[in-house]
Amino acid sequence: MRAEIIAIGSELVSGQNLDTNSQWLSQELSNLGIVVAFHTTAGDVLADHLAAFHAAFQRVELVVITGGLGPTQDDLTREALAECAGVPLVEDLESLAAIEAMFARRNRVMTERNRLQALFPQGAIPLPNRIGTAPGIWMQMGQTTIVCLPGVPIEMKIMFRHEVVPRLREHGVIQRVFVHRKINLFGKGESEIEAQALDLTARGRLPEVGITAHDGTISFRILGWGNTVEEAEQMIKPTAELIYERFGSLVVGEGSDDVAEGLVAQLARTGSTLATAESCTGGLLAHMLTAIAGVSAHYQGGVVSYANLAKSELLGVPPALIDSHGAVSAEVAAAMAEGVRQRLSADIGLSTTGVAGPGGGSAEKPVGLVYVGLASPRGSKTRRLDIGSDQPREIIQSRSSKAALNWARLSLLGE
Amino acid sequence: MRAEIIAIGSELVSGQNLDTNSQWLSQELSNLGIVVAFHTTAGDVLADHLAAFHAAFQRVELVVITGGLGPTQDDLTREALAECAGVPLVEDLESLAAIEAMFARRNRVMTERNRLQALFPQGAIPLPNRIGTAPGIWMQMGQTTIVCLPGVPIEMKIMFRHEVVPRLREHGVIQRVFVHRKINLFGKGESEIEAQALDLTARGRLPEVGITAHDGTISFRILGWGNTVEEAEQMIKPTAELIYERFGSLVVGEGSDDVAEGLVAQLARTGSTLATAESCTGGLLAHMLTAIAGVSAHYQGGVVSYANLAKSELLGVPPALIDSHGAVSAEVAAAMAEGVRQRLSADIGLSTTGVAGPGGGSAEKPVGLVYVGLASPRGSKTRRLDIGSDQPREIIQSRSSKAALNWARLSLLGE
Repeated sequence: MRAEIIAIGSELVSGQNLDTNSQWLSQELSNLGIVVAFHTTAGDVLADHLAAFHAAFQRVELVVITGGLGPTQDDLTREALAECAGVPLVEDLESLAAIEAMFARRNRVMTERNRLQALFPQGAIPLPNRIGTAPGIWMQMGQTTIVCLPGVPIEMKIMFRHEVVPRLREHGVIQRVFVHRKINLFGKGESEIEAQALDLTARGRLPEVGITAHDGTISFRILGWGNTVEEAEQMIKPTAELIYERFGSLVVGEGSDDVAEGLVAQLARTGSTLATAESCTGGLLAHMLTAIAGVSAHYQGGVVSYANLAKSELLGVPPALIDSHGAVSAEVAAAMAEGVRQRLSADIGLSTTGVAGPGGGSAEKPVGLVYVGLASPRGSKTRRLDIGSDQPREIIQSRSSKAALNWARLSLLGE
Repeated sequence: MRAEIIAIGSELVSGQNLDTNSQWLSQELSNLGIVVAFHTTAGDVLADHLAAFHAAFQRVELVVITGGLGPTQDDLTREALAECAGVPLVEDLESLAAIEAMFARRNRVMTERNRLQALFPQGAIPLPNRIGTAPGIWMQMGQTTIVCLPGVPIEMKIMFRHEVVPRLREHGVIQRVFVHRKINLFGKGESEIEAQALDLTARGRLPEVGITAHDGTISFRILGWGNTVEEAEQMIKPTAELIYERFGSLVVGEGSDDVAEGLVAQLARTGSTLATAESCTGGLLAHMLTAIAGVSAHYQGGVVSYANLAKSELLGVPPALIDSHGAVSAEVAAAMAEGVRQRLSADIGLSTTGVAGPGGGSAEKPVGLVYVGLASPRGSKTRRLDIGSDQPREIIQSRSSKAALNWARLSLLGE
């Protein structure tokens, strides 16, 4: 079984937006044992849709199309598909009712054009959209199975997992069970970790192990298979244990769990609470923590002390300390961490102060310099990070946020 | 003149790596006035190369291929190209000498396989590689111009700019100059905005106008062209003015500027300062603002008052108010906004409190309910948002953050 992924959108072929849907779908399909042979992207031109669809329908057995299902004049996927199949578009009353209900729930006016989203090529099966207006499409054309998903990534992902995967199983497209386990590490570079794992990533070894890096987090992806989930999990288990044993506290979590989840797990394990005080990371520490559902049991809140007034007024940092050492200093980082710990009655206070750039750097305190403060009942300590003066603002903010969260995590582990 | 970009590599179709070359090339080509109609990606399989090349050579006049020019057995671009053209591969002595010199300069041993990189389809022109070993290829096949570039992004970019662009000009492929302008709106749905812009987005109208939606922000993309940049800008101007006139305060900014940038622009225009108090958005408001370089002149900072203690301790919200109305209430939202405004001596205080889910909802206060508070010298007001109880946590956080920032922006505009 070979598959092709077709992404639709002029904003993609023109280079205005980067297509990340095709990569995500490729990973998911390959985890299901389906080889993706081609990606194609076409703009919002009917003839180009037809050219892309015809080519794909001839060369693979599964075609997954993303985008072009919206209500606007640019959205031509439905029309092109009907033309390829030589069938008319017909209205699906159930889909129409779902779209109307979605607008009603949100108290928004449904335009006449939104009715178009309830049109399907005759014989196609509508795939419900749980969070958006555009239903997907499941269709059989000769030997080829065709699946159309919305272009909005979150809608696409939810529909793929809930509507497409079960149908692929039902139709016998997915036969073996593939299980995929992802173990995430933080604190060392990709090449350093890879050098310690050459035996695991060697070609031909089973189960297959790959390494990927994303925003400072290094992930081992282990792929196992078998006739049942249990068999596949058994295949993975010894390799996963080896990774835990070899990399110890570098492991922050599994799946989508990153450094923040790793810290929250340690807060839960030790029954501790946390508060944050951020200057250069500007709320990103808090945002990474509060993106986790149920974090309120362990996270009291925090302060984004961008102006010096916020540092003194909300955190009790003495203005004289800022005057003598500067806002970006180990002394101020320690006072911020201790201040927020006390004000919010938390066990641990975590702070950042630094130069996120692109302006504001000096020879002594260059762009990319960040001090992290960590206060606990045992007192406070600080750490200096140099993210690099050539790094963009967003990287300086995200790397220093993750380093700070990781330091708090390690301290709860007693390191 | 229409173009197709073909990216070669099994690591791309399998989803292991993300293809960013195609986006970069699309942007470069469209700035040169060449419309990119398709992207195709194929793995390291000869038959798939041939299928992709044949399809492309038939449907466009310029094909840019990246990758597959290395020395390993997986690198099949040269071979596939020769087969498509029906010509043999011949060794180019000048390219061979350049590859040998590159190895000598780096004190590395040149393997026999590297000689393969000096092979070219008969009749093709080698494109020198200034920083790597793989030369590129320029070739004419009937009406189609074919360009092959290395897959390594930096080598690809340098070769494109130094070797390909001058040749495209020489061959008269580049004639006109193209300019894009993107105008971003927030506050209404995509279909509602499009219904008011059907005259602008109609097919055949000049300049071309497209609509895209991303995370609640709706963008008009206008494409103009001419013999000079000025001419292209002139072509765009009346349409841009019409959009500003028709959509007024829905316009938040241009290019990459979104709601946060739109608010900061209004803070700057009115000489006002802002402070934030966040419960359910958990630092995202602060993060969106502090992602903007130079925002410190207008943003004092904020509080992430996750626990009720943080609301009373850092914002002065009376515990009795929380007890009687609940933390998620218009009354508490108003007190949070007023509290942070006073504590941080800001002109405007902006607050959020709501149920981000997935747990914690009730019939009276469902998941997706968010109160926004806005305090100014004229007093405080609140607004209720219903993002939808079926929405995931990240969407509830991001939509309510953007709605809050937009409300503050509109209030500075006097609306």
